[in-house]
Amino acid sequence: MSIPYGIPLTLEQAQRAAAAAEAEALRNGWPVVIAIVDCGGNLVLLHRMNDAQIGSIEIAQAKARTANNFRRPSKEFEEQVAGGGAGLRTLGMLGVAPLEGGLPILLEGKIVGAIGVSGVRSFQDAQIAQAGIEALSTPS
Amino acid sequence: MSIPYGIPLTLEQAQRAAAAAEAEALRNGWPVVIAIVDCGGNLVLLHRMNDAQIGSIEIAQAKARTANNFRRPSKEFEEQVAGGGAGLRTLGMLGVAPLEGGLPILLEGKIVGAIGVSGVRSFQDAQIAQAGIEALSTPS
Amino acid sequence: MSIPYGIPLTLEQAQRAAAAAEAEALRNGWPVVIAIVDCGGNLVLLHRMNDAQIGSIEIAQAKARTANNFRRPSKEFEEQVAGGGAGLRTLGMLGVAPLEGGLPILLEGKIVGAIGVSGVRSFQDAQIAQAGIEALSTPS
Amino acid sequence: MSIPYGIPLTLEQAQRAAAAAEAEALRNGWPVVIAIVDCGGNLVLLHRMNDAQIGSIEIAQAKARTANNFRRPSKEFEEQVAGGGAGLRTLGMLGVAPLEGGLPILLEGKIVGAIGVSGVRSFQDAQIAQAGIEALSTPS
Repeated sequence: MSIPYGIPLTLEQAQRAAAAAEAEALRNGWPVVIAIVDCGGNLVLLHRMNDAQIGSIEIAQAKARTANNFRRPSKEFEEQVAGGGAGLRTLGMLGVAPLEGGLPILLEGKIVGAIGVSGVRSFQDAQIAQAGIEALSTPS
Repeated sequence: MSIPYGIPLTLEQAQRAAAAAEAEALRNGWPVVIAIVDCGGNLVLLHRMNDAQIGSIEIAQAKARTANNFRRPSKEFEEQVAGGGAGLRTLGMLGVAPLEGGLPILLEGKIVGAIGVSGVRSFQDAQIAQAGIEALSTPS
Repeated sequence: MSIPYGIPLTLEQAQRAAAAAEAEALRNGWPVVIAIVDCGGNLVLLHRMNDAQIGSIEIAQAKARTANNFRRPSKEFEEQVAGGGAGLRTLGMLGVAPLEGGLPILLEGKIVGAIGVSGVRSFQDAQIAQAGIEALSTPS
Repeated sequence: MSIPYGIPLTLEQAQRAAAAAEAEALRNGWPVVIAIVDCGGNLVLLHRMNDAQIGSIEIAQAKARTANNFRRPSKEFEEQVAGGGAGLRTLGMLGVAPLEGGLPILLEGKIVGAIGVSGVRSFQDAQIAQAGIEALSTPS
């Protein structure tokens, strides 16, 4: 939560992350939408894979913005909702998609943006997003 | 979830479905709005029956878009909400109307659009929508 | 401008107008969207003919609402814009589509709704809308 | 205006067009956003090049949707506005971005989607979009 924002990721980095995410999705036969925002919360890349459901275009972006703008995996908000009680207030938080599948992208300890994936079950979306993240921590 | 999108349904097909749905609604004395979108999520037909409530104009469209854009009966989202716990996250999904009464329209195994009905109790809305669907699977 | 609103038109009347409008459109090979609102400005019927452009879905509704909510043919607003000068203020009028092709529907001297057509050249749109209007003034 | 919609373009086709558009942009040192929608008007791909202005994220999408949803180069609407007089009504058309730089993508005589570019001068945006279009008409 105290992770600072860094320098916005580049299109090249976004493409590298998207390519790895798409490879993971294709390996599993999962048609998804992949969205990547920079640390200003603004869209850098969106790819809708063939046969991905149309509704995921907005959801993927919402997950990515949630992860970047609140500097945490969007899953944390899903868990707050799932916990019930006061956690339900999360549903009233403007700009929060309480759905697993959005992850901040860190480089050298700073948030440079986030990736959001939507289209299959949300833990599968997250698995795809994680593959995208890992492509950026590996020397290219 | 893996049902592919097909070729957009025609106005004639939409009218055939709407006529059957309206007949089912009239038979029961249920004043409703019927909306049909194509597989791009764009409106093809909307009929507001006499005495249907105004609010249903938007709800019927939202149910139809939910069914098409997420490729499943909108009832699935209603059930997720009803189930509580993590299912409540559905309330934070952009573009989802978690309300029974929206059904994808399939032709030859592909989604060609969807029908959404609103105006009476949601299981009754769904009954009307189902009558519309069946008119398209019957040889005309 | 001082024409009073009457009793909202029925779905049957809207369908009669739409059928005549569609016949006129088909006769000319013009793929359009036809929208009909009641005198509350709320949608009663929308038909998107095959091959009509997607953008016309919103435009047809906007023309119909303009004609009903301002109780005049939408062409009047187009002419104000075309006249330049102070007429350009029309572009800042909320809820006005300054586009020919929207016509109020009168029954017994009162406005019961309006029809809006979009998809071809705007004077052609208006010709189609007029055909719809005339179907309601003819004994059925 | 009477060009029919066809089958939605694929992500591979969108990526091929985007790569060619980006190459043209890089060759000229023009940082832009490139958006590609399918023929349902739904986003398939968005790339924001490094140093592209944030405002272009929405404009590029609006140009692409204009070109697809109204089945013509968005430049036509810009020219209507520039012509003054009645052409100014274009500013009141919902869903129209009257800005050069959006082009329909045709395959085998049908519209399969559209490309929109924003970030530099609008005729330069159009030059980039055109490069994207040409990549799809060349055998890969």
